[in-house]
Amino acid sequence: MLPEHAVVCKDAQPGGCMDERVASAVSNWAPRFTTNGVAVADFQRVTASVERWDDWCSAWSSAAKVHEDLGREAMREGRTRSAGAHLSTAAVYYHFGKFLFVEHPDEMREAHGRAVACLNDALPYLDPAGERIEIPFEGSRMVGVLRRPNGPGPHPVVVMVPGLDSTKEEFRSTEALFLERGLATFSVDGPGQGEAEYDLPIRGDWEVPGQAIVDAVAAQPGIDPERIGVWGVSLGGYYAPRLASGVEQVRACVALAGPYNFGECWDQLPPLTRTAFTARSFSGDQETGRKRALELDLTHAAGKIRVPLLVVAGKQDRLIPWQHAERLVAEAGGPTELIMLEDGNHGNMNVAAKHRYKTADWMAAQLGA
Amino acid sequence: MLPEHAVVCKDAQPGGCMDERVASAVSNWAPRFTTNGVAVADFQRVTASVERWDDWCSAWSSAAKVHEDLGREAMREGRTRSAGAHLSTAAVYYHFGKFLFVEHPDEMREAHGRAVACLNDALPYLDPAGERIEIPFEGSRMVGVLRRPNGPGPHPVVVMVPGLDSTKEEFRSTEALFLERGLATFSVDGPGQGEAEYDLPIRGDWEVPGQAIVDAVAAQPGIDPERIGVWGVSLGGYYAPRLASGVEQVRACVALAGPYNFGECWDQLPPLTRTAFTARSFSGDQETGRKRALELDLTHAAGKIRVPLLVVAGKQDRLIPWQHAERLVAEAGGPTELIMLEDGNHGNMNVAAKHRYKTADWMAAQLGA
Repeated sequence: MLPEHAVVCKDAQPGGCMDERVASAVSNWAPRFTTNGVAVADFQRVTASVERWDDWCSAWSSAAKVHEDLGREAMREGRTRSAGAHLSTAAVYYHFGKFLFVEHPDEMREAHGRAVACLNDALPYLDPAGERIEIPFEGSRMVGVLRRPNGPGPHPVVVMVPGLDSTKEEFRSTEALFLERGLATFSVDGPGQGEAEYDLPIRGDWEVPGQAIVDAVAAQPGIDPERIGVWGVSLGGYYAPRLASGVEQVRACVALAGPYNFGECWDQLPPLTRTAFTARSFSGDQETGRKRALELDLTHAAGKIRVPLLVVAGKQDRLIPWQHAERLVAEAGGPTELIMLEDGNHGNMNVAAKHRYKTADWMAAQLGA
Repeated sequence: MLPEHAVVCKDAQPGGCMDERVASAVSNWAPRFTTNGVAVADFQRVTASVERWDDWCSAWSSAAKVHEDLGREAMREGRTRSAGAHLSTAAVYYHFGKFLFVEHPDEMREAHGRAVACLNDALPYLDPAGERIEIPFEGSRMVGVLRRPNGPGPHPVVVMVPGLDSTKEEFRSTEALFLERGLATFSVDGPGQGEAEYDLPIRGDWEVPGQAIVDAVAAQPGIDPERIGVWGVSLGGYYAPRLASGVEQVRACVALAGPYNFGECWDQLPPLTRTAFTARSFSGDQETGRKRALELDLTHAAGKIRVPLLVVAGKQDRLIPWQHAERLVAEAGGPTELIMLEDGNHGNMNVAAKHRYKTADWMAAQLGA
């Protein structure tokens, strides 16, 4: 998912407009952070403590450490359920420290390593438990977290695709919506995302990594290979339909706040977002970044989507114009539904109750959960 | 639980200090509201829209209506799990509209009625489901919500006691902590609380209503009458140990942010809190209210608590001085534990991760869950 706040901040240099940044972070990012596992009091404390963007990652890492320590303590005391909760929370905090910090790669990578380690350690103690799956891909690998709902399988499954700055560490609360409706989940870091972002650049042809992901998920025990859906948010809202356009096993697709063509959004993107895309597409400079962004395009893909497609967008999205959603719906080759929220921001995180449950119900219905 | 913000607001008259109130609400109440089911974006929208205290209840009721409508829509469409989530959320919003609105009794009662109706309609669709239980008491009745964890019983159970302005509508997220550890929960409106506040005044001798509550809970199918614990927050952090001091079946007790003697806190209480206590103790005037508050006292009760007692308090509590917690621990007649958090506010809602999981683990261990 992409940051909204940075629209306010026209200068990405340290010290440029930091009070505005923090004020804006509170109003724009609070719904995203808290929906995905950050306590509101921690959000207030951390954002109030940060004056310069350069301090962002260390401030979040300090807050994360509190939760990690609580998790390690709980583990020592055999309180494993609490340990799983604390450590998966710590992973979210480290993740948000790292998520757009590409201009400080060493610090970013350190926080990222902590996020991954905390989530790995939490997985056996989540309810239901999670399992780390590594998928070999083009000389490197993609990493995902598989969770199966309670009850006997084989289970339908939802492949969950992050965006430019979200990763599998951010998806516990969204997984819960699917899991409690009887769907397994597979949250995966694809090319340019999370654990894969150092070796595999962002790419537009997500039918390629998507095929590898779907094949790997379909082969897991307890998973029904005939009932696979895909869900994606922000850039993942582009990747998911692109995947669905070319991967035959997929039975249903949700695109939340995704672009039809990301390059066409370039000029209105916040500087931090452009910088992150440039880095994660291995572009070298922003002009190359813009060109790569233009390759994230559904023109020749939308018509190939034959499975049911749910598109969710918000009219107040300052990153991805809502017209991109209408364009995808108009061109999709199968049955479509559109949830367009008048007051929704990027990802509709500020009006979560208006679409998250409906989305989960829709996917459960499509996959016969 | 009692409001912190109103400490800032020295004048309870409409228009007295409303900008401060809203600013303070955001910083002090956000953790309580969001921990208990309010979306942070809704919290921001509602508090930003309210300038005068007189508008508080209608603003929250409008926000609640959005969730209620989503719930009714989901119910019509047979999406019952989502309906349960939306409607129990709506109940929380209506509750927070009503919770301290005693100076406008008609409006308060209207919002209260909506809160109760929404929760009632949600109960069958929660996971696990809830059941409404009415306990005849002194010519009126106390109402509680019983939820049993998944799996075969008989289950240990935690009686959950609200405070001055909290009610059973506010406890879904706390119930979840106990339920997922194998404990049943019974969230109850006692005298002066929630559905009982119109007929039964606040009283100090909670061993009396407590006995009626425990007897009713012990008689429910699927409940193990030998494994009953009690948990209370704020004034409930007084009621729970008072109950444990005189109700023989209780096996363990948690007191979160409770007073040793509420009357001794009177002078530092926010005006809204004193007004609410005066109304809910049927005191007629504030001087009588103060006298009644002095009757909420553990002097002759603490030593009679023979079961394990966990006391949780925060050094930054501006309503109940943390010394009250130390006094209870010093005088309790059985084994005690104290969690005293340096940075904790009233109820330690701003540092929830530091005590909520530990509390749930402690209760599960005491009751052999």
